[in-house]
Amino acid sequence: MSPKSLKAPRGTRDFYPDEYRQREWLFDCFRRVAHRFAFEEVDAPMLEEADLFIRKAGEEIVDQLYHFEIHDHHLALRPEMTPSIARLVIARAGALRMPLRWFTITQNWRYERMQRGRKREHFQWNMDIWGEPGVAAEAELISALFSATDEMGLPRGTVRVRLNSRALLEESLRGGALRDRPEAFEPLCIVIDKLEKIGPESVLEQLTAPKGGIGLTEESAESVLALLGARDLDEAAAHVPDDSAALADLRRLFTLLDAYGVGDQVAFDASVVRGLAYYTGIVFEAFDAAGQLRSICGGGRYDRLSETLGGKAIPAVGFGFGDMVIAELLQDQNRMPELPRRVDDFVFALEEDQREEAIRLAARLRSGDRRVELALAGGRLKRALADANRIGANQIWMLGPDEAERRVVRVRDLLSGEEREEPLTE
Amino acid sequence: MSPKSLKAPRGTRDFYPDEYRQREWLFDCFRRVAHRFAFEEVDAPMLEEADLFIRKAGEEIVDQLYHFEIHDHHLALRPEMTPSIARLVIARAGALRMPLRWFTITQNWRYERMQRGRKREHFQWNMDIWGEPGVAAEAELISALFSATDEMGLPRGTVRVRLNSRALLEESLRGGALRDRPEAFEPLCIVIDKLEKIGPESVLEQLTAPKGGIGLTEESAESVLALLGARDLDEAAAHVPDDSAALADLRRLFTLLDAYGVGDQVAFDASVVRGLAYYTGIVFEAFDAAGQLRSICGGGRYDRLSETLGGKAIPAVGFGFGDMVIAELLQDQNRMPELPRRVDDFVFALEEDQREEAIRLAARLRSGDRRVELALAGGRLKRALADANRIGANQIWMLGPDEAERRVVRVRDLLSGEEREEPLTE
Repeated sequence: MSPKSLKAPRGTRDFYPDEYRQREWLFDCFRRVAHRFAFEEVDAPMLEEADLFIRKAGEEIVDQLYHFEIHDHHLALRPEMTPSIARLVIARAGALRMPLRWFTITQNWRYERMQRGRKREHFQWNMDIWGEPGVAAEAELISALFSATDEMGLPRGTVRVRLNSRALLEESLRGGALRDRPEAFEPLCIVIDKLEKIGPESVLEQLTAPKGGIGLTEESAESVLALLGARDLDEAAAHVPDDSAALADLRRLFTLLDAYGVGDQVAFDASVVRGLAYYTGIVFEAFDAAGQLRSICGGGRYDRLSETLGGKAIPAVGFGFGDMVIAELLQDQNRMPELPRRVDDFVFALEEDQREEAIRLAARLRSGDRRVELALAGGRLKRALADANRIGANQIWMLGPDEAERRVVRVRDLLSGEEREEPLTE
Repeated sequence: MSPKSLKAPRGTRDFYPDEYRQREWLFDCFRRVAHRFAFEEVDAPMLEEADLFIRKAGEEIVDQLYHFEIHDHHLALRPEMTPSIARLVIARAGALRMPLRWFTITQNWRYERMQRGRKREHFQWNMDIWGEPGVAAEAELISALFSATDEMGLPRGTVRVRLNSRALLEESLRGGALRDRPEAFEPLCIVIDKLEKIGPESVLEQLTAPKGGIGLTEESAESVLALLGARDLDEAAAHVPDDSAALADLRRLFTLLDAYGVGDQVAFDASVVRGLAYYTGIVFEAFDAAGQLRSICGGGRYDRLSETLGGKAIPAVGFGFGDMVIAELLQDQNRMPELPRRVDDFVFALEEDQREEAIRLAARLRSGDRRVELALAGGRLKRALADANRIGANQIWMLGPDEAERRVVRVRDLLSGEEREEPLTE
């Protein structure tokens, strides 16, 4: 067998016990918050029909799909959870109580070039609300996001949210430039999402390119770019109609965020559009206030996804919160807790003759729901003591021929060093 | 998009909230027991280099591999967890404290024909001990297995274990028939594992076939078959040398199992060899006593796997306990618990004017770690009450214009129907 098989595939992670405990601690933060918001956990297979993920808006996510054919099925590892959630909702839409609050903690896969804080798999906490068209749903989700960073012990101000509305963008297209071609709106957002990366001139070029499929007039494209420069809601107001519903939604959202006590952690940012094709309204992302890391969490409203997948129209909004960037931030901030192994008792038989007695003792301790490591072979007491200390056991229970004869067990408290004898009961 | 994409791929499962709660209940049973036995949880990527799983002993598991090439990498979804565990151990063998006790709860994939209680994915609880050559390790694992069925509320006697040793089989090969071709032992076990399915004549034929690679003499093959018919350890003794180490191990194992209090749930069965190529010594399987279902759990000793994968020799033993067959048994026995959704409070604002007040109330309740569903839109009180009842909330907190003006909230206990008013604090 080639040596490479002894490594995890490039871009993937093994979780040894220490790393697993950190992962579980993080997931427990997610779960506690989700339950506090009365969300229910669901899951779907990591392998889906590839069609579920294939969209035509030029997203990175589709290019980076792990997909393959097997016995005439075209399957893919999920790159994100939202399409699977949508599939579950659509399949039982008639029977599910709306609004529906679901969360997932799943591993997602993207075949991409490796960078800091980016691998080919990551775990992601998703929170989704289906069936509520109003921004009360967005406010609830953004509040949950901050509850999670609170739960992790991150001080307020460490993580901030910037948000925008794609609906604002749609309204700003003077003269309803895409009125007859709504399908061009998704690629338009994908292009705008690249603004920071490719610069305004390339964006302008792509927005007006007749062949690219978007084909805005120069004027419309300029108005889009002008909106992206707006620094607050009042500036944005200059680029949309007076009765702008998108603007009213944004103002209302900030009022609700204030009621949740998180309004001061959230700012309007006209340049945020997010890279997923299916968002239709409010979009937001959480990032570290120092601006050192990639985004921690991204989300938004996707009211048309259900219809795109062949279901009936159901409004929906959600976010995905990955495990990698937040872990970097927690490390940087010294907030990743020390999580030692927890063992109550270490049970040790000096000789094989005391093994059965040691087994009975360990079984008795375990039946009291204690965490008990039973030494599986005899040996030197000194070694056993070192072992018990190394795993962080609270007590060691020692059985030698002398103790067995006297029907007792010697118990040492490994913190205080105090020893006592206890009778061996049947 | 084709309608088939709205279904999970054939042979895979979605987990809606009710199903997810049952799954978590089962996993929690596994986890509690594993921690009680001082095992540590680990994880590895579901996608591995395909080489890790490809063996040459004719196992079903290799034929049923989900594997594919992507950018010149040959990858596979894991069909079982043991090779990944082995990979993790080998990679850090020098630094890991032995004996090492690890457990995993992972999803594994096999592309196979569907039957009752068999899908293309399942979750499996694995418990493995590395670094202990003696049967004390096997005894610890088999005891843990029964602790898990106890934890699920299954009465003793519902699940039983039958066990055997492949070493016994090796010793029974008169004249050391495979002494010069130890590599033929794995395919020999795979053939014997099919005894019940294909019958003794076909087994005899395959064991003696010169081309099949096993090529036993008729006499050796007959002695193997004779051993498989042994009904207890004394009968088995007639087929192995007087100083049989395998037999001594089996006798010792039963003594230890008695000390754990599970000896009466376990029986020797010479026909058990298990279908995985890498087992070398004790093998065992748990099954429902009524004999209605496929096996619940299978395990054994695999002392040579580490070397096969290119590591140093480390003795190891483990089991895999799937989530599907045990679920069938729990259903059949009416032991699958009812697990309703748990919500403490339902908070409802009659009108949009009371929304901010309702948000502040929900936030306050949640900060006390209560599970709170906040209604995201106003509406009729009757509908809200029905909703709160439907989700099983304990209390509903109601805010209308009258309450808001008087700075109170109306709280109804949904079990007793009693109502009270509480002041709205800032």
